[in-house]
Amino acid sequence: MAEKKIGNQTVVFKSPPVVLAGYTVVGPKEGAGPLKETFDLILQDTYNGENSWEKAEMKMLETAMRGAASKGNTQLESIDYSLAGDLLNQLISSNFASRQLGLPFIGLYGACSTMALSTAFGAMLIDGGFATKVLCSASSHHNTAERQYRLPTEQGNQRPLYAQWTVTGAGSLVLAASGNGPKVTTTTIGRIVDFGETDANNMGAAMAPAVADTIINHFNDLNRPEDYYDLVITGDLGSVGLQLVSDILKKSNLNINNLGDCGVLIYNPEQDTHAGGSGCGCSAVVLGGYILDRMFKGELKKVLLIGSGCLHSPTTALQGETLPAIGHAISLEYN
Amino acid sequence: MAEKKIGNQTVVFKSPPVVLAGYTVVGPKEGAGPLKETFDLILQDTYNGENSWEKAEMKMLETAMRGAASKGNTQLESIDYSLAGDLLNQLISSNFASRQLGLPFIGLYGACSTMALSTAFGAMLIDGGFATKVLCSASSHHNTAERQYRLPTEQGNQRPLYAQWTVTGAGSLVLAASGNGPKVTTTTIGRIVDFGETDANNMGAAMAPAVADTIINHFNDLNRPEDYYDLVITGDLGSVGLQLVSDILKKSNLNINNLGDCGVLIYNPEQDTHAGGSGCGCSAVVLGGYILDRMFKGELKKVLLIGSGCLHSPTTALQGETLPAIGHAISLEYN
Repeated sequence: MAEKKIGNQTVVFKSPPVVLAGYTVVGPKEGAGPLKETFDLILQDTYNGENSWEKAEMKMLETAMRGAASKGNTQLESIDYSLAGDLLNQLISSNFASRQLGLPFIGLYGACSTMALSTAFGAMLIDGGFATKVLCSASSHHNTAERQYRLPTEQGNQRPLYAQWTVTGAGSLVLAASGNGPKVTTTTIGRIVDFGETDANNMGAAMAPAVADTIINHFNDLNRPEDYYDLVITGDLGSVGLQLVSDILKKSNLNINNLGDCGVLIYNPEQDTHAGGSGCGCSAVVLGGYILDRMFKGELKKVLLIGSGCLHSPTTALQGETLPAIGHAISLEYN
Repeated sequence: MAEKKIGNQTVVFKSPPVVLAGYTVVGPKEGAGPLKETFDLILQDTYNGENSWEKAEMKMLETAMRGAASKGNTQLESIDYSLAGDLLNQLISSNFASRQLGLPFIGLYGACSTMALSTAFGAMLIDGGFATKVLCSASSHHNTAERQYRLPTEQGNQRPLYAQWTVTGAGSLVLAASGNGPKVTTTTIGRIVDFGETDANNMGAAMAPAVADTIINHFNDLNRPEDYYDLVITGDLGSVGLQLVSDILKKSNLNINNLGDCGVLIYNPEQDTHAGGSGCGCSAVVLGGYILDRMFKGELKKVLLIGSGCLHSPTTALQGETLPAIGHAISLEYN
């Protein structure tokens, strides 16, 4: 087995990379939610000074990337790679934001699991000896995702109560080989799990089995006690998916008490988002904002984030396919 | 600087991973071209036994993945990661093919540069100590790409003479920490370059500056003589882009004699594809077929492949954006 791999799917970093800083940009709705104090920049409107929502998202992501570098006292030129992903066809938010930076760029697609994936991959690049600094980013925008995946955003279609609301937000982290900050200590890269869910509004149900699979493998691979982490937080399962994953874990005899979900945390119930937040931006801004904030303050010392992604497309749904999903986990520790 | 990084953008592997085997599946048109003897499987028609072209592409990619593992005498269960990408929205070919394999999966989007990117990343995972075996794959299908990027395929629209033809093909490599085969010795991850081209039919012109940038950085970073490689082969610039990249390199005083392009090689001029082949599948099957074949036969000892990708989408084109592009290089050596 590879030197740094343990068990089925987990990697233990030899020289755990450090998160020097995170920077987050969110839309007005997210900026009115319970985590507003933890975000770096709250947009006044969803256009972000641009003439299309797609351009607004690109600019938001570029702002997050530059903001993270600046907050981490890092010259852009000293960054070896920029890793990013988003929900839009052909990854255009990441591509066009990265074009502005001129860094060696790798585009990742993990749907809403992308922030965990880019952070995992960034940590691998550093621990593998290929980089000293990496920018790890992800974004989503409610209005670009809505019209790409579903129906014209302006139409304002009614949504089922178990549906989630795509977060308008971009998050970026600077990872480095050394420095002060939480360390990325392990990662568990997920495999695709598909239990046959076909309702593309019910992302939580589609993703819960994949996320549970990754959590179970993570704890088994590391032979880690159930109470090891101060917080085990899933990406964007929402209230429906969080309940399901909690049930699956209990049935698998894994009793995790500190289980939460970025999608559940990001909005107030009064904001009428139904089952909570979703989108790559959801876990990106909760990680870059809320989680890092609490870690830097010493309120959280050990966190497991499991990014959750649904890997379908509108085309596969129309062709009668079910919803394959994936979960990627990263552990952050700060003593 | 990181231990294994050299110059601006290049990584030199400490224990260069080995390509144990490559497996390629192509459509009937590619199977009638000059490289037909180098492909493992030639489909009888573009449906591949499925009822949609998208499903045909997914199945083609799954066949390539399983074929590579089998040809490399590798049990699927012993593979640590599957890395794959394609052109379709939300990477559905890769996602649905990977669902069937059940391996830890990472989706990459580099447009037509994906095969070089997945191989580069796979080599990093092995050399970094995170994996002993990795599957690196990419695919495209003429009929799925055509209707997604342009117009209904059945409409048979006329194409300008400088346009390229998306290859129907899937290629997969098994990379391993040890064994017999060509070694992945270095990689140069590209940065996004955009010279303002706006004609989405003229991919060669859009991608040439990015590819030249990566080639120049590769030779500079390694201080490598111009005649180091037996073959320097670009991904899918086609005849227009290949001429442009050749001109740029000459103007930059880099005189490479053995310059070729996968897109130029894959079809005969009589096949009426105009400027040649394109798509993720193009460099995937030329690498997995033609290049590996010649390396295993000892006809080529040192090869530099530069995957080329155009990172736009139909939406960005409609919103008046130019065409950003990228090139990722990998060197293969077999003594």
